[in-house]
Formats: sequence, structure tokens, C-alpha cells
Amino acid sequence: MIGLGLIGGSVLRAASAAGRTAWGATRSTVDTEAAVADGYDATTDVAGAVRRAGERDALVVLAVPLPAVEDVLALVGEHAPECLLTDVTSVKMPVLDAVRRHAPRTRYCGGHPMAGTALSGWAAGTPALFSGAAWVVCAEEDTDLGAWREVAALALDAGAHVVPLRAAAHDEVVARISHLPHLLAAVLASVGAYGGPLAAALAAGSFADGTRVAGTRPELVRAMTEGNRAALLPVLDEALGKLGAARGSLASTGGLAATIDAGHEGLQRLDKHRTAPRTGVRVDLGAPDARDGLLALGERGGRITGLDGDVLTGEVG
Amino acid sequence: MIGLGLIGGSVLRAASAAGRTAWGATRSTVDTEAAVADGYDATTDVAGAVRRAGERDALVVLAVPLPAVEDVLALVGEHAPECLLTDVTSVKMPVLDAVRRHAPRTRYCGGHPMAGTALSGWAAGTPALFSGAAWVVCAEEDTDLGAWREVAALALDAGAHVVPLRAAAHDEVVARISHLPHLLAAVLASVGAYGGPLAAALAAGSFADGTRVAGTRPELVRAMTEGNRAALLPVLDEALGKLGAARGSLASTGGLAATIDAGHEGLQRLDKHRTAPRTGVRVDLGAPDARDGLLALGERGGRITGLDGDVLTGEVG
Repeated sequence: MIGLGLIGGSVLRAASAAGRTAWGATRSTVDTEAAVADGYDATTDVAGAVRRAGERDALVVLAVPLPAVEDVLALVGEHAPECLLTDVTSVKMPVLDAVRRHAPRTRYCGGHPMAGTALSGWAAGTPALFSGAAWVVCAEEDTDLGAWREVAALALDAGAHVVPLRAAAHDEVVARISHLPHLLAAVLASVGAYGGPLAAALAAGSFADGTRVAGTRPELVRAMTEGNRAALLPVLDEALGKLGAARGSLASTGGLAATIDAGHEGLQRLDKHRTAPRTGVRVDLGAPDARDGLLALGERGGRITGLDGDVLTGEVG
Repeated sequence: MIGLGLIGGSVLRAASAAGRTAWGATRSTVDTEAAVADGYDATTDVAGAVRRAGERDALVVLAVPLPAVEDVLALVGEHAPECLLTDVTSVKMPVLDAVRRHAPRTRYCGGHPMAGTALSGWAAGTPALFSGAAWVVCAEEDTDLGAWREVAALALDAGAHVVPLRAAAHDEVVARISHLPHLLAAVLASVGAYGGPLAAALAAGSFADGTRVAGTRPELVRAMTEGNRAALLPVLDEALGKLGAARGSLASTGGLAATIDAGHEGLQRLDKHRTAPRTGVRVDLGAPDARDGLLALGERGGRITGLDGDVLTGEVG
């Protein structure tokens, strides 16, 4: 485990709790000392930890912020050039590109556990952080399905369910359901704050809900939104188009039915997807169409919930 | 009480619970029968109830949806042309204009209790709905402060605190902190729904928070947003400007710091207003500067919490 903050520290705890031999490294002496004090095998010697992983054919998990990924990948390319590799970063295409540049011979398979809290650092972590959460595990045309299996096994060990996706599909959907919400919350908070103490006195549920994530640490929000620039731009344009259409309609006819009805129906459609009855599925990783089957499952909102040898079990709506 | 839905029904209950003689009327036989079954004095004869209010110099409270306000005001202008009059509609300038057209001799003072639930109808009401809530009571240059006092007394009897504001100031701030959040939630729900079952499978806290109010009944959202067209347009333009600036910055430099930092700081500024220490204030309605004092108090986020004769007590940050 490279990086022992909230996510990395929680993965290290969860992997250890599942009976795995796991060790961690981070440049942060605070997090290292806290991890050691809690009984974990942790060091500030990142290169050494990577080398050790290479020697033992361990799975290397990058859990550093996106801006630090390239530096750590260069270390991996140098000290464990053919290792099994995953990461837990919230955007996947930029990391995939960086792996191809800095550690092209690693057996890389990107991941994104979709869990977190407002807190950060080793002290905020818990082995139960991923319990019941979705953990995206990416599969590209050239992904080694053996590596995919190892990363999925870690996610399942941590109590998550696995959503198989292409990196590009991941980035597109998180732009929609995570990064755009953060930008809209920021805009709403700014517009609200311009209303001063009176706005503060009268703001209630709709404003509180709509601005909640604007309380997230700005550097975290910047890292994920700026890091997902390519996928976020078209989604931001969709939102601008819809908001501009509402503005035009309100100014011209005075009506907002199209905007409001579409939002209401959209929310109902999403609820319907979420509550649809699910049927069980099996995917044999040894079958010739395994990759296509996995990706189709993920695109349809399905999930992998178990692993027995090379046979995955899951469900889809 | 004209209108016995969620708000009107709750005001009737709260006024009765405070020891007032109160009666209600609505064209809805369902709500009338439910109110009568609960022991309240209710009728479907709206004109008769208005006439009775005029004869007894009672305070008439309009609690009908905005699209029905003009019709009921015509009845008031005909059957109780000089009565004390307030309303509980969520926009204030359009109602003030309608009063000036249809019932110009009434002693009108607009109100907006800022409470509600996702439910509607008499059955959803409760006398405690307004407990601890803000209730805006409007004061214009020509508002009779005696009428203002009566409306404020009703709000205080219902357990609310009173925020004195000009109708235009009310409409501007609710556009900012209530109507814009509804439009942004609708846009976000539409953009999210375009992501299909995968978006439903991965959407978590930020999306759920940002779209929650898109679940509100569309006709209610339309009534308040379309009804507040004049005040909402410039606020919508502010939001479009900020979102467009974010888009431009992401496309050109790749940076979103200005957007994200401003949102974070805005939220902190609002929290600071909300938690600022408050000092007690007194406003004597008989004083020559009473109106200016009240309006300054409201604009600064202050509130009236008590009434003793003509002396109001309150607090401001």
C-alpha cells in the first residue's frame, strides 16, 4: 500500500483484517508513525516498500493523491517494473495514461472504491470503510484478466462489491454523478453567500442539501474535477445547456415545466433502476467472452459480489 | 383561513391551539370534510367564510396556491373589501400586485411561513409545523403597521419567529436560497439520469444531496419558480455566469480553483452569519422610525421573537 491516508489506510486495515500479509509506505511521518503505533507494518521508505512488493510478486496499491501519482509510478517502474498494480484514484483515464508512460510493463488494473468521509489521514481510516460500497475495477482491451481477478478479490475482501468498467466509462459517469454535483454546489454556495446574513437566516433544506458538498476540502475537489477534465467538460456543457434553456424559457414564455418535469422524471427513472429486481449472473474468467461479459454487466449497473476460483458471481437489474 | 391544505390547515390548527377563534374554507370537499371530522369549523362556502370575516373584522389568511390567488382576492374585494388580510404564498411581489388590483382597500400585509414538508393536503398538516421556523412578514412604504402587528402576532402564536422584509427583498432572497436550488437540482437529476442504470448504481452522497428537492411535486416547484420570474431571472443569470466561467477556465487553463474556492468560502461565510452571537433588540411600533427599524433588522438577518403591546422584541447578529 503506497499512501496511508483515509483510503490507503483503510485498505491496509481491511486487507490485514481479511488475513492478507500487507505493508504500507508513505512520505508522511505522521501517518507512518500512527500506522506503526496501531500495529501495522509501515515505513517512510516508499522505494523500499515498492522493491519488496516486486520481489514477492505482491499487489501494489497506489493510494496517493492524483498530483502525486506520476512520481510514485516512476518509482514503481524502476523498482518493481512487472508487478501487479492497482490504484484507488477517483479518475481512471489519466492514471491509465500515466501507467503507460511510467510503468508500461506492470500488470495494471485501475480501481476506484467509491467510499469516503469528509475526514482525511490515517487516523480517519477504518477497515469497514468499504463495506457495502461500490468499487470500480477497470478492464481495458489489454487488461490481464488474472490481474483483474486479484484486484477484484481485494475489493471483495474489503467488503465492497465490484463494478467492472472501462476507464473512459468510469470517468464519464463520475463526471455526471460526482464531479458535476460538486461544481453545482460550489456555484450555489457562491450565489447564496451573495445574499449575506439574510440568506443565511432564511436558507433551509433545499439550500443546505444543494450546498452540502461545497464544504469538502477544496484541494480534494480540485484534484478530482481538474483531473477529470476531458470527461467533465461535455457533462458541464450538458448542464449549462439545460440551465440556459431554463433561463431562456423563463425569460420568454415564463414557463419552467420542461426543466422541472425532466428533473423529476429523471430522478424517478434513477430510483427505478436502483430498485429494479436483480437477477444472479455468473462470469467464468476463463471463457473467451469473459471481458465483454464483465463490461456489459458493469455498463448495465450490475455488480460482482463473489469469487470462487475463476468464477465470479454477481447480479444485474 | 382560505385554503386548508398543508399550510392553511396547519395555520388553522395552530391558531386554534393558541386560543384564537378561527374558521376555514376551501373548495376541496376532501379537505373540508377532513377538517370538520377533526373538530374544526370548515366549509366549502368560500364567499360565506370571507363575508363572515369582514363582518367580524377578522384577519383573513389566504393559503391557496399562487395560480388561485387572483380569484380568491376578487372574492375578498367583493365580500370583505376593508378586512385585515395576509397570505402564506411563497412569492410576495406578485401577490402584492394582485391585492392592489383586486382588493386595494384591504389592510394587506403579506406573509411567508418558511416551513413545509413533501406532503400536501389537510391530512398532512400539524399545529407544530411552524415551530422554530422563519415567517417573513412584509412591510412596504404604505403597509399599516397595525396590520403588520396582527400578522406578526399570528406567526408568533404559531411558534415561528418573524423576519420583517420588503416584498421585493423577500422575492430576491428566496430566488437565491430556494428557487435556484430547485432548478439546479432538476438540471442535475436530468444530467444524471442520462447516465442510465450505471449512474443509478454509482450515485452516492453528492448526487443524492444535490438532487433531493427534484423529488418535490413539479406543480409546486413550477408555481413558486414561475411565480417569482422577475426576481429569479437575475439570480439564474448569476448562476449561469459562474458555471460558464468554470467551464471556460476548465477548458482553457484546466483550473477550477476560483469556482471551488469561492463556493467553499461562501458556505463558510453563511455558516459564520448563522452562528454569529446575537444581541437583543426592541422595536416600538409607535415610534416614527419603526418601519425603517423593522426592515433594517430583517435585511441584517435579524428576527422578531416576541410582542408585548406595541413593543416587539427580537435579536440580530
